[in-house]
Amino acid sequence: MSSNREFFTTRTVAQALAGFRPGRRTPIETIPLSQALRRVTAAPVAAPHPLPGFARSTVDGYAVRAADTYGVSDGLPGYLDVVGAVSMGAVPMGTGPGVAVRPGTAVAMPTGGAIPAGADAVVMIEYTAAAMPGTIEVVRPVAPGEGIVRADEDAAAGQQIIPAGRPLRPQDLAMLAAAGVIQVPVHARPRVTIFSTGDEVVPPSTGELRPGQVRDATAVALAALVSDAGGEPVLAGIIGDDPGALEKALRTALPVSDVIVVSAGSSVGTRDETASAVSALGPPGIWCHGLAIKPGKPTLLAECAAGDGGPGVPVIGLPGNPRSALVVFRLIGMPVLRLVGGCPQAPPQPSARARLSRNVASATGRLDVVQVTLDGDVATPLFGVSALLSVLTAADGYFVIPEEATGLDAGTEVDVILYA
Amino acid sequence: MSSNREFFTTRTVAQALAGFRPGRRTPIETIPLSQALRRVTAAPVAAPHPLPGFARSTVDGYAVRAADTYGVSDGLPGYLDVVGAVSMGAVPMGTGPGVAVRPGTAVAMPTGGAIPAGADAVVMIEYTAAAMPGTIEVVRPVAPGEGIVRADEDAAAGQQIIPAGRPLRPQDLAMLAAAGVIQVPVHARPRVTIFSTGDEVVPPSTGELRPGQVRDATAVALAALVSDAGGEPVLAGIIGDDPGALEKALRTALPVSDVIVVSAGSSVGTRDETASAVSALGPPGIWCHGLAIKPGKPTLLAECAAGDGGPGVPVIGLPGNPRSALVVFRLIGMPVLRLVGGCPQAPPQPSARARLSRNVASATGRLDVVQVTLDGDVATPLFGVSALLSVLTAADGYFVIPEEATGLDAGTEVDVILYA
Repeated sequence: MSSNREFFTTRTVAQALAGFRPGRRTPIETIPLSQALRRVTAAPVAAPHPLPGFARSTVDGYAVRAADTYGVSDGLPGYLDVVGAVSMGAVPMGTGPGVAVRPGTAVAMPTGGAIPAGADAVVMIEYTAAAMPGTIEVVRPVAPGEGIVRADEDAAAGQQIIPAGRPLRPQDLAMLAAAGVIQVPVHARPRVTIFSTGDEVVPPSTGELRPGQVRDATAVALAALVSDAGGEPVLAGIIGDDPGALEKALRTALPVSDVIVVSAGSSVGTRDETASAVSALGPPGIWCHGLAIKPGKPTLLAECAAGDGGPGVPVIGLPGNPRSALVVFRLIGMPVLRLVGGCPQAPPQPSARARLSRNVASATGRLDVVQVTLDGDVATPLFGVSALLSVLTAADGYFVIPEEATGLDAGTEVDVILYA
Repeated sequence: MSSNREFFTTRTVAQALAGFRPGRRTPIETIPLSQALRRVTAAPVAAPHPLPGFARSTVDGYAVRAADTYGVSDGLPGYLDVVGAVSMGAVPMGTGPGVAVRPGTAVAMPTGGAIPAGADAVVMIEYTAAAMPGTIEVVRPVAPGEGIVRADEDAAAGQQIIPAGRPLRPQDLAMLAAAGVIQVPVHARPRVTIFSTGDEVVPPSTGELRPGQVRDATAVALAALVSDAGGEPVLAGIIGDDPGALEKALRTALPVSDVIVVSAGSSVGTRDETASAVSALGPPGIWCHGLAIKPGKPTLLAECAAGDGGPGVPVIGLPGNPRSALVVFRLIGMPVLRLVGGCPQAPPQPSARARLSRNVASATGRLDVVQVTLDGDVATPLFGVSALLSVLTAADGYFVIPEEATGLDAGTEVDVILYA
């Protein structure tokens, strides 16, 4: 049925993750901060000036000279003249807080207010009391610097505030906003062209199916995984079982794609079409054809010249079963996509420790991906052939049985990766 | 400094999570499947017809009558006449596979192909051999149903394939596509109006700061957390320290918001303005003012009548420090937002078990949120006053010290929630 089958180069998942590391990176673009969530920084960002930029109070209270409070206590309070009050934001241009603290005096401070000249600490209001009009009692001593954030305590001028290669998190946007950095250099989202193949595959919008036809379930889910990995999916449609057609489609897609994904037809013949088409496109070519994973064995990993002289475009040929395709793309495709988008690390994934409710068999030398439902800390494996999508929709997560294991006994603790 | 302070109703985080459960839900809208990732289903979705809809082969091989293979072995193969081949997708309208399997015959099958009439199993090609032209040897018996997915094995007609209230995952989209469901009823994304307040707060685009001024770091990060929780953020700008102004702004925002978030100025006076403005808007009013959490104590949770006769709009008043605001919104605001958007459960979060590198103090009766860096399985707490954003940007995650604890010793194992 398949003359190519003998030439499979089968790899393990670990080999694929370590070895299939395409050199292609998306170009750099500058975008507004408001659109930068999860975008990957293309360069470190430094603080253009010290942050917060002025010494601030961290409490409601009184700015003082710390020395004026030494030795005070409830029984022996210190007395300070209140010579002014700092208010928020109402500071005339270029003048600073406007009042100064001299020995024996204090200035009322709101949290966040600018520390007046002469003060080196802020006493919390809880440790003061009104003594008489214009005078306060202080009942606890403060050390110099207490109650104060220094002008450069969040960042010194020129200090890196965000590293390169970071998918920006909400708090990173906050830091950039605080620093006045409202344009950020990031990697462009990888454009991921998704092809479905197979004469039996019809669009999801097909109302009535003829016997033997199936709707394209994989493409919309792959597009979702591409979005999750920071990419921009392009659904390029369904290609029939005609090797010339796929090769032609790949040639057209290469110059406008950072990654190409082909979800194969499910029969052996169809699977080999991706390999044939990729081979016809010339070097770098196929890196592996066949992955030691269940489900997902008929996976192809390749790179094809983009025609721009740069590194090749990764081409990922996925198994025909939607479930196998999604399992493999999650494990292998998403990390490749993130790498091309400038982020070499995989993001943290939700997981839970759980005990297996029953034995699970596995073959040595192959990574098994087992879907489970979770009830408390009990994981119940979901069985069923890889053609069944309902196994994936019923699952709360999955765990892997490593290559060296021959199966796991009921009661074994496993790390379940949870679907978010 | 504050006359409202005495009327604080302080709650614990657990009380807030259990008790502040606004009844408001966003309306239902129908959207295309391609835009439905993470959208929350407003009703269960049933399969309109059986799935996959026809009996399919799960392997490459030969469709047979199982009874024809009983007792066969390597030493005593069975012989079957190959009377046809099923190909993918090339099935004339309404006719089914077009060939039938009668006793003593077999039909060549690709994986995924429609099982011909008369066959009740598929023998894998590996267990067959060509005997003579038009005849195969079968060397392993198959049981009825082997190598076959039944026509309704993924779902029977009318069976629920997706429950209500589910944020749709990639595989859920696959299942919907397979069923031909290309329009999905979902809850509208909650519209979340975000106000910043404080005379000292200026837009992030402000190039030069006057002493005492700070750029609005919170709003853009809150907008990011709102997006992460499935909401649609509306940045409504900065309101000065003028109680009338905030009340007016809230009145304008209420009819067009599903949730309102006010990040307060950092001083006590400013914090109380949110409470005053909410009180002025009348019932339902303030649910809690003061949360037993560090950082984040000056948090306000309220509901205000939307004016549409429906349940009140949740109003979340956040502390003035950006770091405190983000900590509280993550813990309290995001679950509220998800609830309003139709999803009562919190999503799984990435986490890691780690040992503390040093002692961490805490006060009883208060939840402490401690930011940490992670190095392998060692968590190093990041200290620094809550005014410092750099603590959040340096952090890989955080853990909580529960209300009943008085601190944790170095070496204690903690669950670190990882920032994704």
